[in-house]
Amino acid sequence: MTKSNTVDPKKLTIFTKEAFIKVGISPKDAQIAANMLVATDLRGVDSHGVARLYSHYINRLKSRQINANPQIKMSSFSPSTVLMDADQGLGFVIGNRAMSEAIRLAHEVGSGFVSVRNSTHFGAGANYSMMALKHGMIGISMTQGGKGVVIPHTLGPSAGINVMSVAVPAKKEKPYVLDMATSVVARGKLQLAQMRNVSIPEGWAVDKMGNPVTNADEADAILPLGGTPKLGSYKGFGLTFLVEILCSVLSGGLSYPKRPAGLNVPGPAHFFGAIRVDGFMPVEEFTQSMDAMIKACHNLPKAQGVDKVYMPGEVEFETEENRKAGIPLHPKVIASLKTLAEELGIAYNL
Amino acid sequence: MTKSNTVDPKKLTIFTKEAFIKVGISPKDAQIAANMLVATDLRGVDSHGVARLYSHYINRLKSRQINANPQIKMSSFSPSTVLMDADQGLGFVIGNRAMSEAIRLAHEVGSGFVSVRNSTHFGAGANYSMMALKHGMIGISMTQGGKGVVIPHTLGPSAGINVMSVAVPAKKEKPYVLDMATSVVARGKLQLAQMRNVSIPEGWAVDKMGNPVTNADEADAILPLGGTPKLGSYKGFGLTFLVEILCSVLSGGLSYPKRPAGLNVPGPAHFFGAIRVDGFMPVEEFTQSMDAMIKACHNLPKAQGVDKVYMPGEVEFETEENRKAGIPLHPKVIASLKTLAEELGIAYNL
Repeated sequence: MTKSNTVDPKKLTIFTKEAFIKVGISPKDAQIAANMLVATDLRGVDSHGVARLYSHYINRLKSRQINANPQIKMSSFSPSTVLMDADQGLGFVIGNRAMSEAIRLAHEVGSGFVSVRNSTHFGAGANYSMMALKHGMIGISMTQGGKGVVIPHTLGPSAGINVMSVAVPAKKEKPYVLDMATSVVARGKLQLAQMRNVSIPEGWAVDKMGNPVTNADEADAILPLGGTPKLGSYKGFGLTFLVEILCSVLSGGLSYPKRPAGLNVPGPAHFFGAIRVDGFMPVEEFTQSMDAMIKACHNLPKAQGVDKVYMPGEVEFETEENRKAGIPLHPKVIASLKTLAEELGIAYNL
Repeated sequence: MTKSNTVDPKKLTIFTKEAFIKVGISPKDAQIAANMLVATDLRGVDSHGVARLYSHYINRLKSRQINANPQIKMSSFSPSTVLMDADQGLGFVIGNRAMSEAIRLAHEVGSGFVSVRNSTHFGAGANYSMMALKHGMIGISMTQGGKGVVIPHTLGPSAGINVMSVAVPAKKEKPYVLDMATSVVARGKLQLAQMRNVSIPEGWAVDKMGNPVTNADEADAILPLGGTPKLGSYKGFGLTFLVEILCSVLSGGLSYPKRPAGLNVPGPAHFFGAIRVDGFMPVEEFTQSMDAMIKACHNLPKAQGVDKVYMPGEVEFETEENRKAGIPLHPKVIASLKTLAEELGIAYNL
């Protein structure tokens, strides 16, 4: 990817915001969504950035699978918990609203949790968990993913490619930011292999009979983290199930068996949490300890050929630093943005 | 193991309680500890039950590595959070006290969290997370384990064999109970292979140079869940790191790099949490949805040779049912209990 193929993040944000406004999102909400999408590209999570602007968001807003003007309902039955019905609103806006609410609850009583039903695709989980950092809080976000994971000892993709993210503040070091599918890999990596026509490592996926495959086209289901029962796949499945419980059972959203199969079913449920560090100890003391632990890990003896040891999130922060001057976009993504500009009648000057 | 080699759980509990009392634990606390140890054996987690009564608890109480009369200090800086200094008290008693406190906070404000420093080995994590179930709450427990896990791209065991457990109530079905080391396997499985002189699966452990080993004696460090970076070991490491943060950084306990190496260092830190289901929706409705989801999983198409699909915790509940009439104990464990009885001057009539 040459420099000439990169786009300016500020211009990309303005473009994305305009696109959202054109399909009925309010300017304020469009700004929130655009910021998150471009932040995701900045952090190098290309699969969840503007590559999906057209397919996942604008198209679905046009076809009303996503509701541009949702009537969000919140109910609270305790000082630290809120149930939200998102009325199929744009996932970014819903997630931002729900995580803000979790943070507000944590400011009041030390911790806060919001379980959300009837939402739509919210992008990368770290966008929400990281909102807690500047408040001196530990942030949590989870979401149901499309069905695609095989439950150990069964056949077929019956569980979701669910996602959990946790962010924890540090002082001078980068914060800890975990953002993971609870399966061995996210679907995006499988799709990439299909697109590029390359084989996938054994241990990512199985065919309809449950046999390991290395041809992505033969993959029927992705394995839970751990891969096989012998290597702890019941743990990956346990986490998958936990995300499902906190997101959809706790919110009254759709979970298996009620949730229909397919990648792009509307209505994913989410879960957000915030825990105040100073509910336990001074933030200053805590972040210093985080720094010490991170530094100690950086200084460990390295395996052959390894220059640097990365803590959760550090690769993404390094990418963000590198991409501030320009985000490299795949030619197919650029093409989709140009088509989008034409369709919506907005200027394409990236 | 024949029926004649089994012991009555009630008698075993009385015996265990008496042993704890003999080394200075109060009758009330001895009952708590004995109940948990025997419950662990009942659930089939033999590695964490009375097999360790002598080595991990009575011996350490005698040598004052565990404090029989700790001055537990609790501080609270928000309505849902508590910091506990456990003064090296017996882990079972500390865990029971801390989890009770988390539940009390959740009753008051919807959720509660307790981070604990300066504790000692607390046995199986599920003993604590499951305490939340009868309150209609989701229970969480975590603990640092001894160092033994290699951080991806480094050499040597620098991270803990940390443990997380989550319990979620169901109605007629068994509750969801996840209880997992965040490494591929717990240390006990490695030790078992060493004892039995059998090989271990590739993907469990590596040698000092980071090469995979199948000879347990050559194992220098256990791999994080996921195994290799290609199969998501950064996720298993991320979870290991998260448990470390919530237990020891948040409590001001010892974490790496301050925490000394070795298996049996005193002072592990824990983390406990409880979230009230009815902070979001009626417990009745929630547990019905849990049942429906669990049933749907049971009814999935099964892989060849599989009779039953188990949800997290179901194997342990089945074992518990089978062992109510008698717990099979390994001859070595029986021998250790007899020696213990003699040393402490209590009757051995199991």
